[in-house]
Amino acid sequence: MGEFGLIERIRRMFDEPSPSVILGIGDDAAVCRYQPGRVMLLTTDALVEGVHFHRQYTPAKSLGWKALAINISDIAAMGGVPRYALVTLALPDTWTVEDVESLYEGIDQCALAYGCPLVGGDTVQSPDGCMLSVTVLGDADERKVVTRSGAREGDLICMTGEMGGARVGLEVLESGADKKRFRHSVGRFLEPKPRLWEAKRLVEGMGVSSMIDISDGLTSEIGHLCRQSGLGCLIQEEKVPVSREAVRWSEARGEALTPYILESGEEYELLFTVSKRQFEGWQEKGLDRNLELTVVGVMMAKSRGMLVQRRGKTYPLSMKGWDHFGR
Amino acid sequence: MGEFGLIERIRRMFDEPSPSVILGIGDDAAVCRYQPGRVMLLTTDALVEGVHFHRQYTPAKSLGWKALAINISDIAAMGGVPRYALVTLALPDTWTVEDVESLYEGIDQCALAYGCPLVGGDTVQSPDGCMLSVTVLGDADERKVVTRSGAREGDLICMTGEMGGARVGLEVLESGADKKRFRHSVGRFLEPKPRLWEAKRLVEGMGVSSMIDISDGLTSEIGHLCRQSGLGCLIQEEKVPVSREAVRWSEARGEALTPYILESGEEYELLFTVSKRQFEGWQEKGLDRNLELTVVGVMMAKSRGMLVQRRGKTYPLSMKGWDHFGR
Repeated sequence: MGEFGLIERIRRMFDEPSPSVILGIGDDAAVCRYQPGRVMLLTTDALVEGVHFHRQYTPAKSLGWKALAINISDIAAMGGVPRYALVTLALPDTWTVEDVESLYEGIDQCALAYGCPLVGGDTVQSPDGCMLSVTVLGDADERKVVTRSGAREGDLICMTGEMGGARVGLEVLESGADKKRFRHSVGRFLEPKPRLWEAKRLVEGMGVSSMIDISDGLTSEIGHLCRQSGLGCLIQEEKVPVSREAVRWSEARGEALTPYILESGEEYELLFTVSKRQFEGWQEKGLDRNLELTVVGVMMAKSRGMLVQRRGKTYPLSMKGWDHFGR
Repeated sequence: MGEFGLIERIRRMFDEPSPSVILGIGDDAAVCRYQPGRVMLLTTDALVEGVHFHRQYTPAKSLGWKALAINISDIAAMGGVPRYALVTLALPDTWTVEDVESLYEGIDQCALAYGCPLVGGDTVQSPDGCMLSVTVLGDADERKVVTRSGAREGDLICMTGEMGGARVGLEVLESGADKKRFRHSVGRFLEPKPRLWEAKRLVEGMGVSSMIDISDGLTSEIGHLCRQSGLGCLIQEEKVPVSREAVRWSEARGEALTPYILESGEEYELLFTVSKRQFEGWQEKGLDRNLELTVVGVMMAKSRGMLVQRRGKTYPLSMKGWDHFGR
């Protein structure tokens, strides 16, 4: 049934759990009211050995960094500020004390970099692989929380940064290719940098209509925005910025670039929508400077479906996101 | 090195993480300031297949209930009210959709029973066993938060309810004995009932000097109170209330009752300290009515060590708590 089918079933079971829960299961983070005008954001993400990482090419320190970073990215994508982190670590007895310390060093570095201290956790034994589950609590101005469902027809679809690097990083590590030649991609895969600063600027000074972070691939995330906003879309594939290393890697392997553009997961860039008028206003005032923003498409009526334009032709945008559960 | 050694090392790495973190790693829950006079409590606890539960005798629904309940118990032990829960579920492909729905039904029942709605989570694939990690966010009056470190010399050591049932429940399930004859114990092990109401009364209307929930066994928890309060103790074993089923089970097996009294984990009763004068005041006013409280010992100077009295003789209280990590 897949991860998204399961989430949908769970969501239905827990509909309308409490009046103070503004937004429950189904966005990047839950949104709960906690004092007038302020909301609390709660998110949790886990990394499982053999599913999300393999020890032979994942340094413990990177694992720690990543486990926290991907949760901070969820808070950023809601327009919030991360405040506190909790870590649950299930450890097999093959881990040494030094491994565990490296892992916490990675968590600590990420915590310091993004101002999100680790305040607690649980350490348990695991009979098989390692699992690391992190919860981050953040907060936000209630009026400025950005969900997946606020996009409107005609809104521009924009993203920060570029695509492809994380997938290249994974493939380089898996294939044993020369890491130094793809240093940027490997770093991006192992220790992603959540776009917290960019999200804060987009939300506080500029205003976006919907937002999500790219954890499962561009196609999959656009699918979430379309479904939850009740719209369709047209993506212009040539406009999506791709990392130079991704171009080099796909050429060297004689493979199409499209999967690196549309399906590369764990990029942790921000994908958001904004009205054309608003976007032009940013450009006039120079608000988009230093943000590495690119317009990659437009939101359309639901009846148009989800489309991608490639070399002048239009295709259905197939939903090949990274499904952590049903692959 | 064991779970507690590891927690201590981690705690040292993350000392003083932020001025708003009042209490970080090392108590039942982290305590963070979030508005004048109010604190946020954050706690996380995980259940790992093959370590904390075995599928052959753990119904999915009970597993869901328990995973949330043990976190609510941590919030209760700090004197707080649970508000929101997040669940991370790592599932092997042997689980059916019905299993997953039962598990969430158990979570939902517990959430409703204790007013702590599930607001989010993450569902991921697991290559081996199942793991369930729950985080609960609660809050409390800042002046009324109860930690493990507030006990004073001469304070009475009290507990709610009785001991032994959870261990009997586990042994009954493991041995395949007749569950119906030990229904109470099996229920207690599979679906523990956190003492939220009792904790609220103890903290709001009565006042206790330190508190902890009994998840790792009486000896282990008393050890935490002693260490973190810088004291010793004397436990009177005969005074510790034991469940009738525990007496029956230990007799039938020709085994000593002591382990059921001192080492039975996952009881989720409250263990707390209170001054003698205060305790007598409760009795005069009848405040302790309906609370099933029992005085089981007294806090002493650190130099006296940790002692247990049994049939008129005094022994050192050995530290055989359930160490989830180093057993």
